[in-house]
Amino acid sequence: MFQIPRGTRDFTSKDMEKRKYVEQTMRRTFQNFGYKEIQTPTFENLELFTKKSGEEIINEIYDFKDKGGRKLALRPELTAPVIRFYVEKLQMEPKPLKLFYFGNCYRYDRPQKGRYREFTQAGCELIGTDNPEALAELIALAYTIIKNTGLKKINLKIGNLKILQTIFKEYNISKEQQNYITPLIDKKEYNELKKALYDYDKPDEIVKDLIDLLKTPDIEKIGKIIKNSKDAEKELEKLIEITNFLKKSFKIENCKIELGIVRGLDYYTGIVFELDAPDLGAEKQICGGGAYKLVSLFGGKETPTAGFAIGFDRTIVALDQEKKSFPENRIDYYVIPIDDTLIGKSLEITQKLRLKGYSSDIDLMRRGVGKALKYANSIDAKNSIIIGPEEIEKKCLTIKNMESGEQKTIKINDLIK
Amino acid sequence: MFQIPRGTRDFTSKDMEKRKYVEQTMRRTFQNFGYKEIQTPTFENLELFTKKSGEEIINEIYDFKDKGGRKLALRPELTAPVIRFYVEKLQMEPKPLKLFYFGNCYRYDRPQKGRYREFTQAGCELIGTDNPEALAELIALAYTIIKNTGLKKINLKIGNLKILQTIFKEYNISKEQQNYITPLIDKKEYNELKKALYDYDKPDEIVKDLIDLLKTPDIEKIGKIIKNSKDAEKELEKLIEITNFLKKSFKIENCKIELGIVRGLDYYTGIVFELDAPDLGAEKQICGGGAYKLVSLFGGKETPTAGFAIGFDRTIVALDQEKKSFPENRIDYYVIPIDDTLIGKSLEITQKLRLKGYSSDIDLMRRGVGKALKYANSIDAKNSIIIGPEEIEKKCLTIKNMESGEQKTIKINDLIK
Repeated sequence: MFQIPRGTRDFTSKDMEKRKYVEQTMRRTFQNFGYKEIQTPTFENLELFTKKSGEEIINEIYDFKDKGGRKLALRPELTAPVIRFYVEKLQMEPKPLKLFYFGNCYRYDRPQKGRYREFTQAGCELIGTDNPEALAELIALAYTIIKNTGLKKINLKIGNLKILQTIFKEYNISKEQQNYITPLIDKKEYNELKKALYDYDKPDEIVKDLIDLLKTPDIEKIGKIIKNSKDAEKELEKLIEITNFLKKSFKIENCKIELGIVRGLDYYTGIVFELDAPDLGAEKQICGGGAYKLVSLFGGKETPTAGFAIGFDRTIVALDQEKKSFPENRIDYYVIPIDDTLIGKSLEITQKLRLKGYSSDIDLMRRGVGKALKYANSIDAKNSIIIGPEEIEKKCLTIKNMESGEQKTIKINDLIK
Repeated sequence: MFQIPRGTRDFTSKDMEKRKYVEQTMRRTFQNFGYKEIQTPTFENLELFTKKSGEEIINEIYDFKDKGGRKLALRPELTAPVIRFYVEKLQMEPKPLKLFYFGNCYRYDRPQKGRYREFTQAGCELIGTDNPEALAELIALAYTIIKNTGLKKINLKIGNLKILQTIFKEYNISKEQQNYITPLIDKKEYNELKKALYDYDKPDEIVKDLIDLLKTPDIEKIGKIIKNSKDAEKELEKLIEITNFLKKSFKIENCKIELGIVRGLDYYTGIVFELDAPDLGAEKQICGGGAYKLVSLFGGKETPTAGFAIGFDRTIVALDQEKKSFPENRIDYYVIPIDDTLIGKSLEITQKLRLKGYSSDIDLMRRGVGKALKYANSIDAKNSIIIGPEEIEKKCLTIKNMESGEQKTIKINDLIK
């Protein structure tokens, strides 16, 4: 027997009902905000990803040579391919470009709960503007998408890397030290962070203040510490403007400024944000994004860019945890001919029902009525129709509601009208 | 500048509008026939494909080793993965199983018109029955799917490999010779076929008769030549029964028996069929399928199986050739604040429109009204709304129809009701 590759998944029809429902809900929300869907290939030239993320990324991705010797990689994420697409073909389009996409991504990682080697991302890029209202709209879109899937408990946190870097500077934390502690901040490993700061000979008070600044939503406190940097003050103003738009225009009350939001990636330039599903524990982050720089790195003319990625699989897990129910694709009618001579006529009736928009199925096994009814039950058909010679003669059908057991007889012509 | 990998494609939003429309139409038709959607991983263990198709397939696929040394392959087709899924996890499900799927497939091939290294297939498998009505329904499904996409010109041809093999036997064509000429028959290279038959010392008359039998829809003619084989006669009866169901129950008139339909793959066991879009020339086959055997080869308990695959990309090309128009996802409202102080209020109105189900966008560039209107035009917005202080004060909006230029003033509350 063959097995599925390690770390990958088969999706049953029950899984797919959920996944397609959530995908379609997300798609409609993107479109509702004026975003347009695009798609890029499943693999790219390896260099695209090493250019963006450094050579170390090779350890975490599926890279391979094709038969022509080209170094390729299954995409680990979707922003690099989309910006490659933009630089290659879309630079002349009117700005802003609002692009969204769904795609499978791949990472060579030890499989563990909620982490797969093939996983699905939904995401978008806003190309051409990073005005406060543009970023507010982007963040509101992420929030609305997750809300529209039906997820109830979500937290929205917004940070700013430029402000954080100014704070680091104020506390004389070197670039090298920043590189070490940023991942600790990202993972909220505050004990490790404290240890590192003590190692850097920072006094108790500064360690306390710094960690407090990473958590506080208090804008005045943040303002005080950065008052020597015009740039950082501008960023703080922008951050305030964005949260005001989110609260007043988009009516999103539960958004919080949190400078400890730093995202894992160093290509972000200022505003960053995350959406958490708090019930998911360690894997609670279901969406992350921000303003970033990538266009010029890929050979294009620099223009402001921002975007976000939603962990599609985690969103589904979060919905499952909230016991969200999804609409089911149930068969409307299951048709059972009582003997083989009635198959042709039964197929015809089934097909007529389908043409009227009723999803319909017919017994294809030539089994007895009892067994066929049992099957109809097992596939969760709403109604069954048993067809015998009498029905054909009288042009009538007896429809049995599979839940209530109720039966009614109806003219064939009435049913398919 | 980075380039897209050779033989792959980026899809613009115009492309995606088409593709998603066609995909959704196909999905609804599968569901209408009682099929349920599933999904398997993008890559599988390489052995799955060599077991099915022989070692030679390695020359045509993307195979690679992962970092754990496992031999993997990007799937070249979807039937093997789906049957692997069935054998691994679904064997105990009530029969028949009606499974459909969409998926990208990969082949390492010289890129040429209409042939890509990454391409999309739609398909299905019917597991547990190969009764004539089951195969007729399967073929009708393929036909209905293509019809429902809007394609007008299609041809349906049905063949049978067991009957063809009986005819080969009657004409003393050895297994080895069959292996050579079957691909010629598949590609309708009748001149090459003639040459081969002359090489095998077949007299003129037999060459003529054989080629005639490959093309004729005349059942009596076919019946005569196979009259010594009970098995082949049974298959012919089945073929007749299937075409009768297709014509009488499914009202599909343009289906033709054609023994020259042999499909490229040697795992088919009897009935095979193809759907052509005749306008596409050499690449006209857009769907192919039949009854096949694979379950026991993959270690499962043998059960009848049949299915088909639709070339999704070719279907789109065929629709384009017929100049089929697709519904467009146009923005309903494009909102333009006339100065920066009105941005917050404008965002609020835009968001209200969205909540009412109108897809809406707002100028994010802080540009003049003229430039913003030009942009609204370029993204093909249906209406624009210019927001000035007067509008806010009077709680009114002036809506401009971007096609007719017509303007009307409406209360904000009326628009979002």
